Amino acid sequence: MNNYQAPLRDMRFVIHELVGSSPICALPAYADCDAGLIDAVLEEAGRFAGDILSPLNPVGDRDGARWQTGADGKGEVRTAAGFADAYRHFAEGGWMALPCPPEFDGQGLPRLLAVAVSEMWKSANLSFSHVVTLTHGAIEALLIAGSDAMKATWLPKLVSGEWTGTMNITEPQAGSDLAAINCKAVPQADGSYRISGQKIFITYGDHDMAANIVHLVLARTPDAPPGVKGLSLFIVPKFILDADGKQGEHNDVYCTSIEHKLGVHGSPTTTLVHGDHGGSTGYLIGELGRGLEIMFVMMNSARLSVGTEGLGVAQRAWQLASEYAKERVQGTDVTQKGGKSVAIVRHPDVRRMLMTQRAHTEAIRALAYSVAALQDIAHQSDDAEARAAAHRRVELLTPVLKGWSTESAVELTSLAIQVFGGMGFVEETGISQYMRDARITPIYEGTTAIQAADLAGRKLTRDRGAVLATLLADMRADQAALAGAGDANLTDIATRLAAGLDDLHAASETLITRMGSNPAAALVVAEPFLKLAGTVIGGWLMAKAAKVAHDAIAAGSSDPFYREKLASAQFYASHILPKSAGLRITVESDNSLLLGLPDEAF
Amino acid sequence: MNNYQAPLRDMRFVIHELVGSSPICALPAYADCDAGLIDAVLEEAGRFAGDILSPLNPVGDRDGARWQTGADGKGEVRTAAGFADAYRHFAEGGWMALPCPPEFDGQGLPRLLAVAVSEMWKSANLSFSHVVTLTHGAIEALLIAGSDAMKATWLPKLVSGEWTGTMNITEPQAGSDLAAINCKAVPQADGSYRISGQKIFITYGDHDMAANIVHLVLARTPDAPPGVKGLSLFIVPKFILDADGKQGEHNDVYCTSIEHKLGVHGSPTTTLVHGDHGGSTGYLIGELGRGLEIMFVMMNSARLSVGTEGLGVAQRAWQLASEYAKERVQGTDVTQKGGKSVAIVRHPDVRRMLMTQRAHTEAIRALAYSVAALQDIAHQSDDAEARAAAHRRVELLTPVLKGWSTESAVELTSLAIQVFGGMGFVEETGISQYMRDARITPIYEGTTAIQAADLAGRKLTRDRGAVLATLLADMRADQAALAGAGDANLTDIATRLAAGLDDLHAASETLITRMGSNPAAALVVAEPFLKLAGTVIGGWLMAKAAKVAHDAIAAGSSDPFYREKLASAQFYASHILPKSAGLRITVESDNSLLLGLPDEAF
Repeated sequence: MNNYQAPLRDMRFVIHELVGSSPICALPAYADCDAGLIDAVLEEAGRFAGDILSPLNPVGDRDGARWQTGADGKGEVRTAAGFADAYRHFAEGGWMALPCPPEFDGQGLPRLLAVAVSEMWKSANLSFSHVVTLTHGAIEALLIAGSDAMKATWLPKLVSGEWTGTMNITEPQAGSDLAAINCKAVPQADGSYRISGQKIFITYGDHDMAANIVHLVLARTPDAPPGVKGLSLFIVPKFILDADGKQGEHNDVYCTSIEHKLGVHGSPTTTLVHGDHGGSTGYLIGELGRGLEIMFVMMNSARLSVGTEGLGVAQRAWQLASEYAKERVQGTDVTQKGGKSVAIVRHPDVRRMLMTQRAHTEAIRALAYSVAALQDIAHQSDDAEARAAAHRRVELLTPVLKGWSTESAVELTSLAIQVFGGMGFVEETGISQYMRDARITPIYEGTTAIQAADLAGRKLTRDRGAVLATLLADMRADQAALAGAGDANLTDIATRLAAGLDDLHAASETLITRMGSNPAAALVVAEPFLKLAGTVIGGWLMAKAAKVAHDAIAAGSSDPFYREKLASAQFYASHILPKSAGLRITVESDNSLLLGLPDEAF
Repeated sequence: MNNYQAPLRDMRFVIHELVGSSPICALPAYADCDAGLIDAVLEEAGRFAGDILSPLNPVGDRDGARWQTGADGKGEVRTAAGFADAYRHFAEGGWMALPCPPEFDGQGLPRLLAVAVSEMWKSANLSFSHVVTLTHGAIEALLIAGSDAMKATWLPKLVSGEWTGTMNITEPQAGSDLAAINCKAVPQADGSYRISGQKIFITYGDHDMAANIVHLVLARTPDAPPGVKGLSLFIVPKFILDADGKQGEHNDVYCTSIEHKLGVHGSPTTTLVHGDHGGSTGYLIGELGRGLEIMFVMMNSARLSVGTEGLGVAQRAWQLASEYAKERVQGTDVTQKGGKSVAIVRHPDVRRMLMTQRAHTEAIRALAYSVAALQDIAHQSDDAEARAAAHRRVELLTPVLKGWSTESAVELTSLAIQVFGGMGFVEETGISQYMRDARITPIYEGTTAIQAADLAGRKLTRDRGAVLATLLADMRADQAALAGAGDANLTDIATRLAAGLDDLHAASETLITRMGSNPAAALVVAEPFLKLAGTVIGGWLMAKAAKVAHDAIAAGSSDPFYREKLASAQFYASHILPKSAGLRITVESDNSLLLGLPDEAF
């Protein structure tokens, strides 16, 4: 198995030619960024991901993170051999700082670039990448709601990667239902809070890779109202800082166990107990009762990051399947009777499987990077209306990207195993890790059901489909351009896209109406609607990509990439996009018998 | 986690009411069988599966089978604690003998019953069930092609379960491509053969559960022609029998290693080396050069068995998800604002997920049992035309059942994990084992691509769709009966079924034409066609089930099962059957760009 090779050609295509880096680099905040810088960063990141992170991926899977009793008699986590070293190089290389704001020593590069770099970490080593995702989440929360003093204390060392971050949300009785959180925060005379309670499923809640860990903890003060309105957010550092800002004594937060999981073995999933030895010290971020609000901003960002995880894992699994298919000799070419044995990439069904992985992954990449560019506009445009419009579209697309990408990643990594045949089922081959790793992505940061309910409710029904309508109008305009290009392949793609857009539009109308009249009936089909939306929006972006490729060929380019992109887009239009037909029927279906069944019938 | 509970109600429904046990019990060979006996056997088998096999399933997963150096310095396999004991009870209980012919001490019960019993073994403990599948395969090969003396020597102890069987097919260079097999068989003066060569991926190739192991080995005599025509089949026992038929010395076949796999850890997947210490002794079954032919009869039977594995694993995963959904309290009822926390089975998306598992699994069961009944007719009817027609339909449906059931099982077991949320990703919960176990089923006994090529080629194109046409006619007649029943739910189901039948018919015409003109283009869409066929045929059987349920309710039955079956059939028609629309578009699509790409583009 070769090390990960970043798909630089497609990344550059999506960034520069499909989404367009020029308008992003023209934003005032990114005045120092240009296409050359983007390409240089991509190459450098690709080398780090391939040379440093990728070789550690099977190590993390095989050896995993381990829990042990530390010198102080308390629990602690050791990551797999090589992780701590790799992390040191990662931080020293400035990779943590890449998307962070310059005023806290970040490099302030656009999200359109950061998303591609982040895809590389996730492709090369999903377990490793978690510590980056969580640290960026902590940075974001502090940027949103931290006081100036707090930012000055915590941000520089998070941005440099000297310290890492976590989100402490889930408790045994509070998973998808955050209202059930009951971790306690009692105010102290010095303005701090005494935190107590158990948090589970905390990613990188303890480890040996950085000097300190900054936990962000959702908890409830004694007089807080019940439900989500009573939640506040606290910083709880693993090591308390002394008066000089130096690391002092160990706070009363300890890791009591880690989970034995299906995948991402290299990423410790910890149980943290706060306050079993007197109480851990925490500091309120923002105002009391605003915890969920801050957490939600972080969580939306984390959802986009998990959407990119689906992309990264699917990309790497495809890459490995593709390598294997060109090496493994088995059977003869169906078009040449009595011929010699050939590499299995010659077999039509293997081509179908590989192209399914490629086309679907490319569509997800196009969506993920598009959303990142919209985030850049939403944050950095000097046109308030452009900012607002971009922000609304990001909000609409966040659950689509998260849900569709991760559900797809499970299917695509499974398909990669199928390419390997019997060897795929043998753990030493290494491909099964990707399906095991991918399986968590539709669960954490809000299950697909949560994403679907968010899409059907807040994102679609709140404005009665207005934001979707603007997107549909853009997609229809692109479809018309494609249909009018006078090329047979483009026309074919345009025809399929038109049908998909009709499916999406009709299904959205049904869903919005039903959310008003019968929310339970609407929510039965919210997940199929989310998949319909992802499938069609992905189809639109692949159709746009086909147009770019067609135009490049027409302009005389001999780069084989464009021919491949046309094939990939045609395949998407005929093998993936047509699913919209069935999904529309499902969204429009009557589910009264299902809803009327008593619970015991299930 | 509770032990497996056999779904007796649905099994009885499919056997007696949907497929119909009366015509099967009326076959001369099954004169002693009636509905009462069938129900009694189902109950007894359900108890064995639930009480004995099910508790061992997590043990097999956790501890696995282990390879070790034996007392003779050679390799040997120890199965997980409890497996050997359970197997002894299994054999003593006569379960191995259940479907075997009475002339060799079998119980001679119909396949329509045996398939349900076999589903139970696979649901309760897929790893354990492999030894049963392989032993039945060896029995079948001997019945087809063994001499009378051979049958007398080997069959009684295989039927009793005292000895077990294996299939030695795969070699490192010969997976899907059997023509590449090069294991050697050199004739000896005493009429036996000296076998040498390495075989890999041999299920239960060594173990400690039975006194002897009867390997069936595909090998090539020195003057055999190249390719599959040069393959012959040999019995190679682990222990050679002495002149009195007693177990004598260890044959020169040893297990040199076992695989470390994604799933079915309890089932040893061995590498067997024949002849490294002088040569192992083998006995020719049937004639030279007929090895593949005999193996194919066995393999068709094994493919139906693996189709039933998909069913069994999906059923058990659904059962566990369903239990969890009724226990796990999280969130409030969407139809009752401000209500109390409820079990997650109240949430619309959880109902959707559970019903997807139920409806899809029930459709696969209906197909698997239908095929088993057709096998009974094909083997036991005294009407030659009925036998031939049933045989042709079994041949058509074999790749459909194998491919569709196993591909579906991967999706459905993944969905079961989703119901568990974060807990599903924790190995101790136990649900992830089912997805890991299911993942091998679309690979072994012929990958889905092999099934799809068999369906598109031999099964569909050879007779230009004649057998499919008779099936389509039957399905259309049932559709018309449903549409004419004057019930709104049935009419709704009938409408969807009519669309599905049109999709299947049109896609089959396209595929047959293309197999003639451009086989590579046809084979790119053979897998989507297989899924289309499974989806629509499953939809037909669920529609028939809805009619049976409707009639039972109309006749005054208050059994809630019938209301549930109606809901399940409606759900299938609106959430699963509509996939046929997209699959038809895919089958009919132009894949010339894909096929024209150079290999390096993948």
